[in-house]
Amino acid sequence: MSTAWKTWRHAVKLDPDRPITKELLREIGQTGTDAILLGGTQGITFEKSHRLYTLVREAVPHLPVWQEVSKRTAIVPGVDGYGIPVVLNAGSTEWLIGHHMQAVCEYGALIPWHKVVVEGYLVLNGDAAVAKATEAKTGLSAEEAAAYAVAGERLFGMNTIYIEYSGSYGDVQTVMEIRRSTNAHLVYGGGIDSYEKGAEMGEWADTIVVGNALYERGIEAVYETVRAVK
Amino acid sequence: MSTAWKTWRHAVKLDPDRPITKELLREIGQTGTDAILLGGTQGITFEKSHRLYTLVREAVPHLPVWQEVSKRTAIVPGVDGYGIPVVLNAGSTEWLIGHHMQAVCEYGALIPWHKVVVEGYLVLNGDAAVAKATEAKTGLSAEEAAAYAVAGERLFGMNTIYIEYSGSYGDVQTVMEIRRSTNAHLVYGGGIDSYEKGAEMGEWADTIVVGNALYERGIEAVYETVRAVK
Repeated sequence: MSTAWKTWRHAVKLDPDRPITKELLREIGQTGTDAILLGGTQGITFEKSHRLYTLVREAVPHLPVWQEVSKRTAIVPGVDGYGIPVVLNAGSTEWLIGHHMQAVCEYGALIPWHKVVVEGYLVLNGDAAVAKATEAKTGLSAEEAAAYAVAGERLFGMNTIYIEYSGSYGDVQTVMEIRRSTNAHLVYGGGIDSYEKGAEMGEWADTIVVGNALYERGIEAVYETVRAVK
Repeated sequence: MSTAWKTWRHAVKLDPDRPITKELLREIGQTGTDAILLGGTQGITFEKSHRLYTLVREAVPHLPVWQEVSKRTAIVPGVDGYGIPVVLNAGSTEWLIGHHMQAVCEYGALIPWHKVVVEGYLVLNGDAAVAKATEAKTGLSAEEAAAYAVAGERLFGMNTIYIEYSGSYGDVQTVMEIRRSTNAHLVYGGGIDSYEKGAEMGEWADTIVVGNALYERGIEAVYETVRAVK
């Protein structure tokens, strides 16, 4: 299993369902970010994912490009690695093991496990599309969120926990409590659109992920948040 | 995490809800079995579990005694280790992670992780009490059962997969398919009450577990099945 996350302090998440220019991608490559993640929840298809991957590879050949797999029909060959989400606080078994078991049935020995990182997701913004899709049990206390992270680390051997507040800026107390409870590599994503927020979450998380802010504020959000954690 | 299972070829599972004499326990200690597991699904209390543990410890001091934790209020201090079931084909999230997360909330740093083995359970007899309690998705094809085992091993880092047919003798094709698909330590339990069945399942499983047969056929079932795998 890959340990790629460990070397990343900052990553940019690009949504295959949103248009982006080669010029903007080239600029992202200049900001000092460590990796490009391809991932989203809605409107994800193989065509869109592959088109974005090709564009990214051409524009920023020096950065690792990973796909966050949310739909097994959209898996793109050739990326440097795959993040496989296991939603620890999912409301049904599908996002804990169901889709994964189906993927093993379909692809079996073809799965390149050495290019896979299993990510223990905590989906904590109840309004996000990913929370609805996974029926996530949001509204957890900081202790409950941390207990899910510990269960992911200790029971499921996960070395990467992804705190996902997608679409909103998260609760710092909760992130701190998770940090206190686990030695896993902590990834934080959600609402980071400024130096201050990048610095605040970056104090507790090992990697911060900037996604929406790029589309909403532009390249300056990436420059600022890179500066905040490096 | 403990690797105790690796050294066991045969184990006897005792049900805290069923009476047993010290004489019978002493005889079990003479059969050549490698370990005693304490576990059951119905009527499990701390008092019954603790009473059985004390009796076993006195009667067979030379054998390891492990508790299969099915109820967190019944956890017995002092046992050599704890098997924590994660039911891979559970129908709800409770037996995949819910109870475990609650236990972390309650016990936190008190949990002796070095005495814990996480067991990826496949509950395959739909008529068993454990299948009803966990709403297990039984009636799987051999390939689906094996895919759950692979998901347990690869995604959840489990090194022990427990094929549980409790109350019935399992499907040999399914056990073979799981064996073909995974390098995890395979435990088989269910319906082993003779030399022949012990030998058959023992060909594919690393450890066979004898439970009900002891209560139904007596000590001879333990002697025969030990002979079958040693």
